[in-house]
Amino acid sequence: MVDADSVDDDGDPDAPGTDYGPLADELAARDAVGCVAVGDRFDDDLRYLTRFSGPDRDYAFVLTLGSDGAPHTALCAPALFDEQARREFPGDTVGVDRQGDPAGVRAAAALADAGHDSGTVLVPQGIPHDAAVYLENAGYEVASTDAVARARETKTTAELDRLRRVQRAAIRGIRRAETVLAEATVDPDRDEVRWNGGVLSTERLRRQVNEVLAAHGVRDAGNTVIGAGATAADLHYTGTDVIRPGETVLLDVSPRGPDGYYGDVTRTFAVDPEGGWDRRAYLAVEAAREAALEEVAAGVPAATVHEEAAAELAAHGFRVDSSEVGFTHSTGHGVGVSLHEGPSLTADEDLEAGNVLTIEPGVYDPSEGGVRLEDLIVVTGDGFEFLGEYPFSLVPQKRD
Amino acid sequence: MVDADSVDDDGDPDAPGTDYGPLADELAARDAVGCVAVGDRFDDDLRYLTRFSGPDRDYAFVLTLGSDGAPHTALCAPALFDEQARREFPGDTVGVDRQGDPAGVRAAAALADAGHDSGTVLVPQGIPHDAAVYLENAGYEVASTDAVARARETKTTAELDRLRRVQRAAIRGIRRAETVLAEATVDPDRDEVRWNGGVLSTERLRRQVNEVLAAHGVRDAGNTVIGAGATAADLHYTGTDVIRPGETVLLDVSPRGPDGYYGDVTRTFAVDPEGGWDRRAYLAVEAAREAALEEVAAGVPAATVHEEAAAELAAHGFRVDSSEVGFTHSTGHGVGVSLHEGPSLTADEDLEAGNVLTIEPGVYDPSEGGVRLEDLIVVTGDGFEFLGEYPFSLVPQKRD
Repeated sequence: MVDADSVDDDGDPDAPGTDYGPLADELAARDAVGCVAVGDRFDDDLRYLTRFSGPDRDYAFVLTLGSDGAPHTALCAPALFDEQARREFPGDTVGVDRQGDPAGVRAAAALADAGHDSGTVLVPQGIPHDAAVYLENAGYEVASTDAVARARETKTTAELDRLRRVQRAAIRGIRRAETVLAEATVDPDRDEVRWNGGVLSTERLRRQVNEVLAAHGVRDAGNTVIGAGATAADLHYTGTDVIRPGETVLLDVSPRGPDGYYGDVTRTFAVDPEGGWDRRAYLAVEAAREAALEEVAAGVPAATVHEEAAAELAAHGFRVDSSEVGFTHSTGHGVGVSLHEGPSLTADEDLEAGNVLTIEPGVYDPSEGGVRLEDLIVVTGDGFEFLGEYPFSLVPQKRD
Repeated sequence: MVDADSVDDDGDPDAPGTDYGPLADELAARDAVGCVAVGDRFDDDLRYLTRFSGPDRDYAFVLTLGSDGAPHTALCAPALFDEQARREFPGDTVGVDRQGDPAGVRAAAALADAGHDSGTVLVPQGIPHDAAVYLENAGYEVASTDAVARARETKTTAELDRLRRVQRAAIRGIRRAETVLAEATVDPDRDEVRWNGGVLSTERLRRQVNEVLAAHGVRDAGNTVIGAGATAADLHYTGTDVIRPGETVLLDVSPRGPDGYYGDVTRTFAVDPEGGWDRRAYLAVEAAREAALEEVAAGVPAATVHEEAAAELAAHGFRVDSSEVGFTHSTGHGVGVSLHEGPSLTADEDLEAGNVLTIEPGVYDPSEGGVRLEDLIVVTGDGFEFLGEYPFSLVPQKRD
């Protein structure tokens, strides 16, 4: 067992604050009396707005504007969580009134307390239906906004710090897996890969990765994807497979840190590779990765990054028009308090400095396997920076 | 580092199926044309209905009745997840049409495909507002149902098997923590508890627990609660505190297994306890636990269990009427694919065989600390069974 402190212990820095300015601007622009978000601990907009890692039942966030136009923010804390809400919420008020009432009812009461008993209330479009109905029954008109999602796309320095920490831990997980694969042996019949006295399965390898994540204070969020052979061509495989010699072993590790930010890194290995499809796929994906990264900079249309990767893979003879074979997905996505958030690399928008993106070209063939390489970057004015770096190699190296 | 396989490897049994009968009965009883659930991987009703651990964007489940009254179930699979949806969904149809459309639109299309273009559609009350509006705009009347939540309260044999596995891993986590605390020493100034060459903090202890969870194939779901002293009186502390000699160290470990089921176990220890408040609290909580367990059986009003525990704690001189000091919460809650679900031990309902409950009396005083003991049980006709057992001791014992 690893002792975390023997490796590193970054302590417990304050959570990053939240700039409510963009949301206040949206309220003013749309002549709305408030913005309400309702959800439980699994709602990422609410996590961003409140920095509160609450319970698995609904609570509410309410933003209103004072007569001077300054935002006032309130968290309607769920029962038994007052103490934690006060510790974590960077906004103005932690409300503990009427804790037995539904969150939508409490949100309406907070709007009324702020002096508004009618008018437009902006909500994320996925707000729970009962909360929207409570607000409507209380006399407000509910209108949806994507202002929170848009605000989340540009990261602050404090957020980048959290993302780097989690990515560093994710890379340690990949390093552990690569080392296990480098230590592994092929049995005399060439049927199985063996390690530490037993058959090596994707689940056994996954547990090795997840132990390292835990030792570094981040957690597998249910998506330590490890596939081998045919299941490496399945984009999100989290099951158990025996790992066979020569098969591509694809590891996509996306843990979540204590402040809610994710890391995301993918590497592909093969124990005793055959040098056929796997080698061609690896070279193509490496080239696509370079081609995509070369395009990244503030002001560049996001779709250009994806198109360059796709063109490179097509030039290497891989299909880019199928959902089963070849390059079957987008080149990347934004990462923050959600594993998948904006910007999209297939959308009609320009990249901005502070966007955090995965760059993850891959090619798949269920009869051969899958190869994907993924890194996490932040967009800068004239290019990008990696939020963590780790080498590439189809043949695993011992790096622990 | 622990190698999972050197400890145990339960493999990857098939996920438990879902009995759609109660939902079909509810449809028939309410003369509804369908039931629709919409959400992402974090929606536990959807997890129960589909057994699909999908992505962090919305997808839909649709149940309709055939002309013979038999249920037909469809999962509108999100793009890039067809393969996984087919592997995991135990229902009838995995739909891959219109994957770019919002989940609510796809659900309406599935209802239309089943021959219904109007009528009442039952939904969980927290369905995303946009999905409810899409259904209404497509001509359906949306009405809420708690039939899914009610069905989830009674566990099948397969579900109990999953819960036992996760609880077993949770107990291994507690065992690791108790062993670390038993190995720990008190520094000469009696200021700090030390272990393995460094100061022992709640975060360092948490990482030890989480490594063991990972090694056993379950994961910290962000709620490996460990508090010491004042933070042991905070019900959900997941921060970093130096552990001091004599302080109560409260560990509440609730990991999630690969099929989505949770475990939940709490123990409280003190390194070199003083034998004052901590000892009195421990004895009172042990007695309350016994009193609560004595009441548990099918047919017993749920609230009786809570009231007996509260009466015992009051008899030991602890307050039961405050949200800050004494017994500040309920004696327990249901556990399944949600960490907190029905039945409630303060509600006006009778326990039923197959209910899975925590029994977790505790007393707290921010100036002293907190003591809680928690086990997971299944209600039977004439009593209960533990889903995992672990001994009690205020003074930690080496058990690894």
